[in-house]
Amino acid sequence: MRILLVGAGGVGSAVVPIAARRDFFDHIVVADYDRSRAEAVVSEQMEAADRAPERVTVPGRAASERVTVPERPATSRQAAASERAAASGRFSAIGLDASDEAAVEAALREHRCDVLFNAVDPRFDMPLFRAALAAGADYLDMAMSLSRPHPSRPYELPGVKLGDEQFAMSPRWEAEGRLALVGMGVEPGLADVFARYAADHLFESIDEIGIRDGADLVVEGPGGQEAFAPTFSIWTTIEECLNPPVVWEDGGWHTTEPFSEPEVFDFPEGIGPVECVNVEHEEVLLVPRWVKAGRVTFKYGLGAEFIEVLRTLHKLGLDSTEPVRIKGVEVSPRDVVAASLPDPATLGDRMRGKTCAGAWIKGAGKDGRPREVYLYHVVDNEWSMREYGSQAVVWQTAVQPVVALELLARGAWKGRGVLGPEAFDPVPFLDLLNEYGSPWGMREQ
Amino acid sequence: MRILLVGAGGVGSAVVPIAARRDFFDHIVVADYDRSRAEAVVSEQMEAADRAPERVTVPGRAASERVTVPERPATSRQAAASERAAASGRFSAIGLDASDEAAVEAALREHRCDVLFNAVDPRFDMPLFRAALAAGADYLDMAMSLSRPHPSRPYELPGVKLGDEQFAMSPRWEAEGRLALVGMGVEPGLADVFARYAADHLFESIDEIGIRDGADLVVEGPGGQEAFAPTFSIWTTIEECLNPPVVWEDGGWHTTEPFSEPEVFDFPEGIGPVECVNVEHEEVLLVPRWVKAGRVTFKYGLGAEFIEVLRTLHKLGLDSTEPVRIKGVEVSPRDVVAASLPDPATLGDRMRGKTCAGAWIKGAGKDGRPREVYLYHVVDNEWSMREYGSQAVVWQTAVQPVVALELLARGAWKGRGVLGPEAFDPVPFLDLLNEYGSPWGMREQ
Repeated sequence: MRILLVGAGGVGSAVVPIAARRDFFDHIVVADYDRSRAEAVVSEQMEAADRAPERVTVPGRAASERVTVPERPATSRQAAASERAAASGRFSAIGLDASDEAAVEAALREHRCDVLFNAVDPRFDMPLFRAALAAGADYLDMAMSLSRPHPSRPYELPGVKLGDEQFAMSPRWEAEGRLALVGMGVEPGLADVFARYAADHLFESIDEIGIRDGADLVVEGPGGQEAFAPTFSIWTTIEECLNPPVVWEDGGWHTTEPFSEPEVFDFPEGIGPVECVNVEHEEVLLVPRWVKAGRVTFKYGLGAEFIEVLRTLHKLGLDSTEPVRIKGVEVSPRDVVAASLPDPATLGDRMRGKTCAGAWIKGAGKDGRPREVYLYHVVDNEWSMREYGSQAVVWQTAVQPVVALELLARGAWKGRGVLGPEAFDPVPFLDLLNEYGSPWGMREQ
Repeated sequence: MRILLVGAGGVGSAVVPIAARRDFFDHIVVADYDRSRAEAVVSEQMEAADRAPERVTVPGRAASERVTVPERPATSRQAAASERAAASGRFSAIGLDASDEAAVEAALREHRCDVLFNAVDPRFDMPLFRAALAAGADYLDMAMSLSRPHPSRPYELPGVKLGDEQFAMSPRWEAEGRLALVGMGVEPGLADVFARYAADHLFESIDEIGIRDGADLVVEGPGGQEAFAPTFSIWTTIEECLNPPVVWEDGGWHTTEPFSEPEVFDFPEGIGPVECVNVEHEEVLLVPRWVKAGRVTFKYGLGAEFIEVLRTLHKLGLDSTEPVRIKGVEVSPRDVVAASLPDPATLGDRMRGKTCAGAWIKGAGKDGRPREVYLYHVVDNEWSMREYGSQAVVWQTAVQPVVALELLARGAWKGRGVLGPEAFDPVPFLDLLNEYGSPWGMREQ
């Protein structure tokens, strides 16, 4: 498998050291608008390979938590020697403008890539998605094509939904015999795999699937004080948090006001209770297409300070993606916000704490009795920094698509058309995630 | 008098219709980085002249207020006919980069201007100030050269203070026999005139001069809801509110934390109580140079929402004037904030309410007994829009330097070197302000 990885930002740069330990692919071309950024990611990997550890350690779990780690192999022991030997030949870097469909198609052809792995902002989904189809490549992303609010009733009804533009082209992907695997990060992605796993193996019927994301991460600023520094792409966070959140209920989708229905969720492994609010997210659009559930929601533990920041950005129009003109130069305010904040990928050394992604499922168990579980994945920043040199949030996002690509490369996952993660058998995915050294967990509620 | 007015933004564009009704000057060249903006201001004035009212009406005062309007002529009756006749020949527009000292000097010479009237952000003070000196012109601004915080103890001690760079050059202005009248807007400006008036005519000795600025202005957004839309230059507001506020006390200056010492001040003419906080402002630096007072402070009625917005901008680094790089383009985040918000000068039609600037003076009266007065100037947006087509805050700022220029043109004010408004006799200023149709008031506390 030859992969064109578009985007050497937080997640893109975390993908490389994860993939470097695996042998399922032949080559990854790292592409970025800023060629030097792609080159830096590749050359860092070369240097890291020279000092690679012999094995991956599995993070310890808090003994106090009532955790069920499924009894499947939970260790990854790919030989570090082969990794070192192969590293230099397996990665290369190019400059590429993700908005230039023709250039992306040409790059896929020139580098004979089988799959385009999209690791840029979702505003570039459609040119990348179309370029892959045109070049006869498969496609994978971690966030779906963007929504547009309902023109007259934005906080009641969806307008154009996340992924609508992509799903509309599914017949063409099917006709070409190619696969577009959309929403295959951690959320969406692993969360969708959890939903399918619960439906297949834990529940007879499901009342609600509530994706819940929370963390106790703190970032130290200069002088040791806690700093305001988002741990994930602020561009994407603004997009998902300020759009009307979407909810699946009674066989249909509806929207609400931003930050609606606050609820305190108790996250596992010592993270503890975090207030979560409704956010627009792909799982709500993806899960009901393949998994039967009465209700699907997504709530994010943003915290009061972050909500206030987002509200203020919106109040000032700084969330806007429409360019403003300054002395003859055009820039979008949201890009300026992103450029003014520290790059989330660089924060790992100043971060402490854990991040948790998961699916909280309520319904009737296989025995017909009420059951409630939280299937989750926790990454401790200290562990991901030590093992991979990547901070927890981007590492947690980056590992999932690598697992998915390995399943596709090995033929364990197969499909054609535009499909979400819940369209596939969840068991090989969850097994392989354990093998990557980052096990998932389950808590009976 | 021939005037080079640099800046056709909020205040600059409000200056033109005020000056158009006066005959003290021969010509005003309106200059802006964006030439078309300067041209628009001039051509609007031409059109306005064709429908000019025959006289200026004096705003009514709330009968319930205990107000003393000094018994001086309070009406302005310049003939509208002569205004119309002269308008076309008295204003012209040019493009000019305020940061280009040589170009500004050349423009002053080419247009034979006697005075440079600076109506741009204070970051351009020094090139304009030097260009005027080099061209042998007088100079007037409404905000002084910028401060820089103390390197190690920013919230205790001043570093480079507002105006320090300008005052350092005073000997050269004196030697050239030219005048730089600095801080001659409303605050600083009229507030400084009030301080001098109190010292000359109302007090034997002064304990404290507290400049207090508050308003009850609201801006209607689309759909009639109250909108967040600053009524004055956000660039300047960020600068003055996020810098360490400065206080004069015990014969010296010290600084505090931003937004310190909140206090509720009851503003006159129906505005009512507003919470005010310390802000870095020129009056605190200017007043003690010419007026003896135990303490000088500046507090601004920002309101909780505005303070939260400013804190958030600071937290995200969006107050920064250092450029960030976005796809090969460099922009300063603060410029993007300004460009994202509506132009304050265009808000007049959607604004309601009044703005008040004034000086609250406590000490011993001429009879030696304790006395406390608030000398103030209120502008009602409804009045300024009707009379001048300018919103209240920019109009209130714009009228003061026009009054000052008229006093200089007529020889009522004379000076050489770098001088603040309190260096001059306040009586002719306050008389002429009344004659402009916008009387000041005094409240015994």
